[in-house]
Amino acid sequence: MPSSVYIVGGGVIGLSCAWELSRNGHDVTVVAPTPGRDGASWVAAGMLAPVTEAQFGESALTALLLEGARLWPGFAAALEEASGQAIGYDTTGTVTVALDTSDRASLDDLLAYQHSLGLDAHRRNATECRRLVPALSPALRGGIEVPGDHQVDNRALLGALATACRGAGVTFVEAAVCAVAAGPGLVLADGHRLRPEHVLLAAGTGLPGIAGLEASGLPAVRPVKGHILRLGPPAAGRGAPAPLLERTVRGLVHGRSVYLVPRRDGSVVVGATVEECGDDTAVRAGAVHELLCDARAIVPGIDELELCEAATGMRPATPDNTPCIGWTAMEGVAAAVGHYRNGILLAPLTAAAAVDVLGRRPVSPLVESLAPA
Amino acid sequence: MPSSVYIVGGGVIGLSCAWELSRNGHDVTVVAPTPGRDGASWVAAGMLAPVTEAQFGESALTALLLEGARLWPGFAAALEEASGQAIGYDTTGTVTVALDTSDRASLDDLLAYQHSLGLDAHRRNATECRRLVPALSPALRGGIEVPGDHQVDNRALLGALATACRGAGVTFVEAAVCAVAAGPGLVLADGHRLRPEHVLLAAGTGLPGIAGLEASGLPAVRPVKGHILRLGPPAAGRGAPAPLLERTVRGLVHGRSVYLVPRRDGSVVVGATVEECGDDTAVRAGAVHELLCDARAIVPGIDELELCEAATGMRPATPDNTPCIGWTAMEGVAAAVGHYRNGILLAPLTAAAAVDVLGRRPVSPLVESLAPA
Repeated sequence: MPSSVYIVGGGVIGLSCAWELSRNGHDVTVVAPTPGRDGASWVAAGMLAPVTEAQFGESALTALLLEGARLWPGFAAALEEASGQAIGYDTTGTVTVALDTSDRASLDDLLAYQHSLGLDAHRRNATECRRLVPALSPALRGGIEVPGDHQVDNRALLGALATACRGAGVTFVEAAVCAVAAGPGLVLADGHRLRPEHVLLAAGTGLPGIAGLEASGLPAVRPVKGHILRLGPPAAGRGAPAPLLERTVRGLVHGRSVYLVPRRDGSVVVGATVEECGDDTAVRAGAVHELLCDARAIVPGIDELELCEAATGMRPATPDNTPCIGWTAMEGVAAAVGHYRNGILLAPLTAAAAVDVLGRRPVSPLVESLAPA
Repeated sequence: MPSSVYIVGGGVIGLSCAWELSRNGHDVTVVAPTPGRDGASWVAAGMLAPVTEAQFGESALTALLLEGARLWPGFAAALEEASGQAIGYDTTGTVTVALDTSDRASLDDLLAYQHSLGLDAHRRNATECRRLVPALSPALRGGIEVPGDHQVDNRALLGALATACRGAGVTFVEAAVCAVAAGPGLVLADGHRLRPEHVLLAAGTGLPGIAGLEASGLPAVRPVKGHILRLGPPAAGRGAPAPLLERTVRGLVHGRSVYLVPRRDGSVVVGATVEECGDDTAVRAGAVHELLCDARAIVPGIDELELCEAATGMRPATPDNTPCIGWTAMEGVAAAVGHYRNGILLAPLTAAAAVDVLGRRPVSPLVESLAPA
């Protein structure tokens, strides 16, 4: 049954939910300080990587990520049509490489785990890896090819979502929310009070800053800092060189993880550190050094790219790294929070779940398992 | 005899000459696209380093740099008084350190050369170096203490010069000069033509872009690219930590040179690459990596500083790395160009020389030796 929904948060989760809810007949308002440029979504690399993100002991999360990936082709096509904007959705696939023999052993363990889950991943020697990605260092110990891990240009995605939302009649209120009450009620930073029919919290790491959620049943959400770099082909009149990379490369470099995600314009996104350090958002020299060091160890050619941006983002993480989606214990207040490293990948699934939740329809067992306590 | 002088260039040389000429009764106009933010001066670190810049085979240049340094205390005091602005002139001194035994051997050779020129430099072991600079890595092989190599905050200097110039009646024309003629004459980028009494070229790496100088007798000036980083103490509420460094540290790191220049606000300027690559001004990932790598090898604590800026500057170099100061072969056209790595250090000397040259007074033998062919 259609209703009026205020969505708190203008990142990829907030905007995806806004678009889908609006397309399903709800009267949607997004409340966010800078919608479409909010939070971790803007800083992200945009990997859609259920397989290469699979971690030992997180097989339930992996099942969720695979279901999230399954929805992406349809979501991407519908969004590009609705917005009239390209979002850089790319299905070329991913290669994960190992720098030393210890990294190779770790990758083999990971590959065995991936196969135990029935995932599509293939051991490749160094020559095979370089055939897939000619820019790889000759010093690598081979890797794993994962055809099903893809990417989207996260900033193009956010722009297209904002356009599609406006086209679907979503209203934007550029403001911060400082408190939520059951009922529901919202209090904006300027003191303004709103009494919408429903609230959907999609505030990422902004959640702990919102008062009134003590009885919501939502898990604690903490910020997990990530440094990321954007490198580009220098403009200086050298014609248009062939792009350095044409598929996503991940690497284990003396035990540290790094990734390089190529964009269609020849630029490369290099990430990302994973740091538990509270709300410190500074771009640190040591982290930038670490990313450059690890990235050039597997793709030496990045040395010639221009350093266009060094930034940090704060991933919203729950205690079990799994998002929380569903009605909270507060009347009229739902949530879609804690997407950690997988907000972009899980946006279509979360938006579809939000339509079921807000429409008071039964949700899938997978989504049911994500409900607040 | 006072005259009307148009100075082409708004970097440290152009502004220093403008201020001194104006104080000496000349009617001065500075023509530059963005005076006070032009060229290499803005990007520089501001070291005043005749001793640690001394290179084998350049003893004549070293003599010039020492004379330049001798004028700095008086220049700094007069400028701070005239402008009412602090310029961060700091006489704490410099330490140059060696990372490995080969670097130590190179420093010992350099020290012998410095002593052969009668320069004030002292061999220090690792413990003595760490007593001078507690933030140094414990892994270093000692170094050289140079009490007479100082620094100034180059951006504060440029700001103070612009203020002092305005106070002294200098006129600013924010425009690019595209041609110079004997007579003299100037043609601006917008086609505007000027017929000043005298022209002083102080255009740095802009010189090759100015037409009409074929018969000037000026040497070729080429751009020598340098990457530089500005690191700062993160703002994020951690009180005011003690500054990481209190004196300039230079280092040899496996044969590569790096320097860290501390500012009074706790920030650190890290530089600089020396690259001959035409007019390519892109900030390259590889160069940023190299600077971070070398700087953290001698001062590991920079890892915790914020990366505030990564930039490049183009040093204006003549074939013998020595500036060219005096009347050109074109009537009414003087020049003060090609200051390469030493523009800040030589600004007071150059400005004093410009007053002699434009006043048609005899110049010192040192300055005489810098005249165009």
